[in-house]
Amino acid sequence: MIIGLVSGTVASAHKDPSLQGLTLLAVQELDLTLAPTGNHLIAADSVGAGQGDLVLISIGTPAMHTESTANRPIDAVAVAIIEDVNLE
Amino acid sequence: MIIGLVSGTVASAHKDPSLQGLTLLAVQELDLTLAPTGNHLIAADSVGAGQGDLVLISIGTPAMHTESTANRPIDAVAVAIIEDVNLE
Amino acid sequence: MIIGLVSGTVASAHKDPSLQGLTLLAVQELDLTLAPTGNHLIAADSVGAGQGDLVLISIGTPAMHTESTANRPIDAVAVAIIEDVNLE
Amino acid sequence: MIIGLVSGTVASAHKDPSLQGLTLLAVQELDLTLAPTGNHLIAADSVGAGQGDLVLISIGTPAMHTESTANRPIDAVAVAIIEDVNLE
Amino acid sequence: MIIGLVSGTVASAHKDPSLQGLTLLAVQELDLTLAPTGNHLIAADSVGAGQGDLVLISIGTPAMHTESTANRPIDAVAVAIIEDVNLE
Repeated sequence: MIIGLVSGTVASAHKDPSLQGLTLLAVQELDLTLAPTGNHLIAADSVGAGQGDLVLISIGTPAMHTESTANRPIDAVAVAIIEDVNLE
Repeated sequence: MIIGLVSGTVASAHKDPSLQGLTLLAVQELDLTLAPTGNHLIAADSVGAGQGDLVLISIGTPAMHTESTANRPIDAVAVAIIEDVNLE
Repeated sequence: MIIGLVSGTVASAHKDPSLQGLTLLAVQELDLTLAPTGNHLIAADSVGAGQGDLVLISIGTPAMHTESTANRPIDAVAVAIIEDVNLE
Repeated sequence: MIIGLVSGTVASAHKDPSLQGLTLLAVQELDLTLAPTGNHLIAADSVGAGQGDLVLISIGTPAMHTESTANRPIDAVAVAIIEDVNLE
Repeated sequence: MIIGLVSGTVASAHKDPSLQGLTLLAVQELDLTLAPTGNHLIAADSVGAGQGDLVLISIGTPAMHTESTANRPIDAVAVAIIEDVNLE
């Protein structure tokens, strides 16, 4: 998984029926110190994440293993809102 | 998922029967501000996308989970035409 | 999918029985303008591709969804011989 | 698989029910000489790994094939604690 | 698939039961001319490969499709020992 910062949402004019009802988050990847890596992606939301939230993103086939993404063509999903990364 | 700009199509001389009937889009990857990242890929189309459209591309096994790509050797598919990325 | 140029073949001294009968192509990745990207990979062949052919390569689990690669440990397969990339 | 150094843990405020009971490790990737590569990721734990442990991380769908990660949206899991990399 | 050079093995202090009996190879990636790319990974062995062998590595879910890796959390496996890459 990667750590991401929710930076916005994606509005679609026309979409595959399989995406109906999903919120699509525009996400910036962060490193373990919560600094931006320069990478980014679009992820579905399964935890009610919003603008400014730190989220945990699962990528690939595992992203289809939440209740809201099952059997959908979704390759990235926010599976948790992160409180803190504890680097001891 | 990633954001892409449809830049053309791919014409094939000979193809695996499993690709029959699919449109193959030549896509440039864009970042969240819609600037090109320099990456590119070929994606199947499931939303009637054409030259100049902004599209949402799903990659990997999830790309086989649209009606038009089921059980085909397709690792990338356009699943939505994007109207806007709202960076609040 | 990516665009590749078939640059040769791989001969193996000893291989897993699951690879029996497959041709393994040495492939250079090309960009949308058909210039080399500097990346490369080994792909199975499902379309009778040979030295110098432009091919469309499917990568990952979808590569196991052609008749010749089903249930084999193949993560990349040439699924079409490309005639042209039409950048309008 | 990759070699990682466990550098901490991730605490989540809210998570998908499918993640219940899993420890999420903050991991730095190491190369074969055990030097950091600069890459990092978040992985579930299946071997009781802790701060400072060298771990073997499996990535992608295979990460869902341990007892603790089965059918969960987990794309990376620590499957072994590494004692040594023997470069002969 | 990628071409790799077997550079050693990984010894683990503690591992997930699903890894029992597998040899874990430390592998350097090579390009089509057999020069190192600087990338590396850990792969299971399904062909009896040893130190100094050139191997063909399958990556991702397809790596779980050999007899020795079936249903295990293995994301990379050596599926052939390479004799030569013929760049015509």
